[in-house]
Amino acid sequence: MYYKTLSKEELNNELSKIKARYDAFKSRGITLDMSRGKPGPEQMDVSSKMFDAVSNDLGYKNETGIDCRNYGGLDGLPELKRLFSKIFGVDESLVIVGGNSSLNMMFDTIAQAMTHGFGAEPWIKQGNIKFLCPAPGYDRHFAICEHFGIELIAVENTPEGPNMDVVEELVKDSSVKGIWCVPKYSNPEGITYSDDTVRRIAALKPAAKDFRVFWDNAYAIHSLYDDDNELLNIYDECKKHGNDNLVIQFTSTSKITFPGAGVAAQTAGPEDVARIKNRMSFQTIGPDKLNQLRHARIFTSLEKVLEHMKKHADVLRPKFEIVLERFEKEFGGLNIAKWTKPKGGYFISLNLPEGCAKRTHALCKEAGLVLTGAGATFPYGKDPKDSNLRIAPSYPDNEEIYKAAELLAICVKIAVIEKVLAE
Amino acid sequence: MYYKTLSKEELNNELSKIKARYDAFKSRGITLDMSRGKPGPEQMDVSSKMFDAVSNDLGYKNETGIDCRNYGGLDGLPELKRLFSKIFGVDESLVIVGGNSSLNMMFDTIAQAMTHGFGAEPWIKQGNIKFLCPAPGYDRHFAICEHFGIELIAVENTPEGPNMDVVEELVKDSSVKGIWCVPKYSNPEGITYSDDTVRRIAALKPAAKDFRVFWDNAYAIHSLYDDDNELLNIYDECKKHGNDNLVIQFTSTSKITFPGAGVAAQTAGPEDVARIKNRMSFQTIGPDKLNQLRHARIFTSLEKVLEHMKKHADVLRPKFEIVLERFEKEFGGLNIAKWTKPKGGYFISLNLPEGCAKRTHALCKEAGLVLTGAGATFPYGKDPKDSNLRIAPSYPDNEEIYKAAELLAICVKIAVIEKVLAE
Repeated sequence: MYYKTLSKEELNNELSKIKARYDAFKSRGITLDMSRGKPGPEQMDVSSKMFDAVSNDLGYKNETGIDCRNYGGLDGLPELKRLFSKIFGVDESLVIVGGNSSLNMMFDTIAQAMTHGFGAEPWIKQGNIKFLCPAPGYDRHFAICEHFGIELIAVENTPEGPNMDVVEELVKDSSVKGIWCVPKYSNPEGITYSDDTVRRIAALKPAAKDFRVFWDNAYAIHSLYDDDNELLNIYDECKKHGNDNLVIQFTSTSKITFPGAGVAAQTAGPEDVARIKNRMSFQTIGPDKLNQLRHARIFTSLEKVLEHMKKHADVLRPKFEIVLERFEKEFGGLNIAKWTKPKGGYFISLNLPEGCAKRTHALCKEAGLVLTGAGATFPYGKDPKDSNLRIAPSYPDNEEIYKAAELLAICVKIAVIEKVLAE
Repeated sequence: MYYKTLSKEELNNELSKIKARYDAFKSRGITLDMSRGKPGPEQMDVSSKMFDAVSNDLGYKNETGIDCRNYGGLDGLPELKRLFSKIFGVDESLVIVGGNSSLNMMFDTIAQAMTHGFGAEPWIKQGNIKFLCPAPGYDRHFAICEHFGIELIAVENTPEGPNMDVVEELVKDSSVKGIWCVPKYSNPEGITYSDDTVRRIAALKPAAKDFRVFWDNAYAIHSLYDDDNELLNIYDECKKHGNDNLVIQFTSTSKITFPGAGVAAQTAGPEDVARIKNRMSFQTIGPDKLNQLRHARIFTSLEKVLEHMKKHADVLRPKFEIVLERFEKEFGGLNIAKWTKPKGGYFISLNLPEGCAKRTHALCKEAGLVLTGAGATFPYGKDPKDSNLRIAPSYPDNEEIYKAAELLAICVKIAVIEKVLAE
């Protein structure tokens, strides 16, 4: 690392220069938020025709004549089941299309496992149970488990997905009931599971028969470039091993149409789908079919969705590239930071020297830039090395992104120099 | 009863005549559904301006500038919290506005009590627990409890609400954790709880500190006539007894705007609201605010909602009156049936001589008229007297209602004469 080659005096000089830049930022009084994977206004404008898709002129009936204003249709409109079946790569009979939140579906599925089990005793009656959490990962996944008192076990994420040697070992423990996976353009690292990883997950023979893979394919078609990463079809692989009910998949249009008013979907093996629909039959009379109809009318084919996603990519790509260029420019040759260069998804993962993430986060905050909490991407919010930061460049506009990336780089440098000085 | 005054020969004659009418119906091959409280197309047309309330022209921001397309706003848009606070008669800080289904909110609240409890041990860890079910009542309420293995205890419904002498006695048992109430224009009897009943519920001192009243005010403003029934404010009454957290209230716009695409809301005491919001913070990032915005823009005041409800009443009232007139005409003087004459809500409750409900239901079904299953309005679907049928006249058009009521009356007569003949 460059800073380690400097004398104390040189380091203090460097720190003064950097702090002057920092103070200049602070005095400008900026307010920037790069904490969540939240689409910006320009991205939401991509879906403006949603507002006209269902109207008094066009009517409120779907292709099979269902009056979408009324009750019913527990598992969603047939058009949307068909569309999601193509995204999931499964038969449409296995697809459930719901409300506006796939997180809600995940929560409900865990809640169901707690009180009713998945083909075995309810989890809540099985004593201390555990979930594998590839880390860094999505904080809200981990939080659901924490809410239900499920113990979190961190598993290292590699560039090909979770370290499968570790996973295969851990699932020999029958109290291990599940694993969280974001298999494509993962949150926060942007990696896509290799074919080998997918095959090894599909072939798992966990000690617990009620072990489930929670496969949150949130970024299934969220490429930033034309050469989309390819993810192997997990369900096809599972079937080869008689593991039809091993994986429960989730996705949504939150980052395709509107974050708050999209449509979420899930799929699983036949037995689990029956279990989930059974629970749903007590829980609701049906989802908001009018909003499903809006989606069905705009997205008459998967091709239409993919065309639509190119417009999102056109908005997002420059934001990612601004951050990556700034990082390259600020950090190039210093060897003080490593970052991912994702081809899709919503995040850039930034790894700093040990013990520098929290300090960087605090410095950013002080100057008006909100980042995802340092450690949030790890189980219990504890990054053992205090080195990872998740950057979400989607919401601010390009000018703000430029400033934010520069400020972030300045804060990193301050934190690292302070660290070296203290050693 | 008139039929008991007839000789066997006269009865057989009567039965032949009635059966001839029945066969004539059957030969016409009708298909009618009066099984669920489902608004008809004409009622949904009342809300047609919903489709234009949010558009590219009018924009997607609420009164405080929230972009309703994006994530966030866990407990709903402020405008809607304000509106529902007026319907509930509570402070808006205690209101949570959610998705399209109040049933979903009730299910989730019970699910939360099961796994996390309401200020005490999780219900699932307290052994066999029980719920009081005023009967006849709403089958989906009872079904939620059954799904979670909660024992159902039937409590007689009087014209003033549940028999409070019985309720006050039963809540001395600490395994009794709740009671289901539809306090206004109840399902299926259309009664509204008297002030005395509301006061006695609010004053309950159950042995279980985690006992809750599930107050499903589904028909809060669903009067058929100008002289709306008055329901005492349960929360105000509760506060007088330090019972702030005794009652959890629910309502929705399913029967105000669209059954499948309305907005649901709940309210409770401050501690329970905090508990519920805490669970929600793990479950979702927020509700569909665009659909909430549609509602907020149409219903800028409670007065606007009440005006709107008059249009529903204008569609529904004739349907109820057709049924009531047919019943009067067919049953008048025979003394074989009693029925409610509700001033609001969605149902007419028909009580027949003991042992005649299932047979009537089967005869109707054979001739193409689907009614709510006989017994469905009782815990475990078992009407101890087999005498109650729930009539839901909202969905079919007036001509169909006329036919359905006539057919139903014919089936009742057949069932009763058969019963008398068999005695």
